[in-house]
Amino acid sequence: MTPKAPGKVWLVGAGPGEPGLITVRGLSVLSRAEVVLFDALAHPALLDACPDAEQHNVGKRYGEDSAAQAAIIAQMIELARQGKRVVRLKGGDPLMFARGAEEALALAAAGVPFEIVPGVASPVAASAYAGISLTHREVSSSVTFITGSDRAGKEWSPESWKKLATATDTICVLMGMRRIKEITQAIIDGGRAPSTPAAVIHWVRAPSSAS
Amino acid sequence: MTPKAPGKVWLVGAGPGEPGLITVRGLSVLSRAEVVLFDALAHPALLDACPDAEQHNVGKRYGEDSAAQAAIIAQMIELARQGKRVVRLKGGDPLMFARGAEEALALAAAGVPFEIVPGVASPVAASAYAGISLTHREVSSSVTFITGSDRAGKEWSPESWKKLATATDTICVLMGMRRIKEITQAIIDGGRAPSTPAAVIHWVRAPSSAS
Repeated sequence: MTPKAPGKVWLVGAGPGEPGLITVRGLSVLSRAEVVLFDALAHPALLDACPDAEQHNVGKRYGEDSAAQAAIIAQMIELARQGKRVVRLKGGDPLMFARGAEEALALAAAGVPFEIVPGVASPVAASAYAGISLTHREVSSSVTFITGSDRAGKEWSPESWKKLATATDTICVLMGMRRIKEITQAIIDGGRAPSTPAAVIHWVRAPSSAS
Repeated sequence: MTPKAPGKVWLVGAGPGEPGLITVRGLSVLSRAEVVLFDALAHPALLDACPDAEQHNVGKRYGEDSAAQAAIIAQMIELARQGKRVVRLKGGDPLMFARGAEEALALAAAGVPFEIVPGVASPVAASAYAGISLTHREVSSSVTFITGSDRAGKEWSPESWKKLATATDTICVLMGMRRIKEITQAIIDGGRAPSTPAAVIHWVRAPSSAS
């Protein structure tokens, strides 16, 4: 009996909203997958690239829980040890405010070969489709991406927002709707002019908004 | 004589380094281009997608000058007015620390239809390939992308870097090598521990480093 070739995991960024925003490399890796574990934020049409692959929806959204995350990691490791080509397909970029880092660390600890295929991060796409540059030579030489949601084990506090208010040019808050009033108030209290232009962008390039 | 159909400009992010990091949509638009104006930072192999298109290298790197930028903009407008399908191919994302915003504004002012196709920003790809997550749930809930180069008409000053030092979690400096000592010193003076892990990443996923 020949030993089974070792498996591998690809953490692939699907990009946000429309399927064409995945990278060429990401789509190529996906088309050769034997198993796909996909997120709620990855576009379902992308799965047409791997019709013969086992497909598991492991999507979780608000209130991500650690048990679910641990189960996904355990499943990836188990499948790779069976010699499978596993794609973990995540919305946006796998590392930017996703949990790809935790997944990569767990794979490395388990000795499972893996590769990260970057993707178009959702705020970057939001900028393109809303026609709002996050950096413009004459206006903004820095942009901060920050989560508006509470971090595990940390109380939300206005202090860090006040500090950020004038330390960076463009502030781009992800997952911030639930605290939007407190966040904007803290940024204003921190010294940012209330007249600063702002935009709220929702479901970037999702099918219902596609032109 | 039938009137010529109006042209259009696509500002397309090529992604950094390797050609597979362009998006599927970006490649599709590129393959249908009649004229391509490409940057030094866009991978030359991408031009294989449009062998019959007119190809112009309009690359400029350090010391970008406004005259060169104005000439590129004038060329795009002129070509689109001739009814051409013009692709402006830029490394990384067209808007993130590129001059896509200036180009888009000029196209809008000239009444030329255009579309921005986002790309994988170079620091996002750097993160993936270096295996360093810019945000990790337990460690970093914000990341700031900032240019280390001087802005037009502004003196470089350590004050803004000191302020940023503790206002954000991860600091990602683009085009910062020429001032790396002053920048790191200002960040330390601003209160960031000198023991903070740091990485310098150069030519992300450029051919010489491809595996």
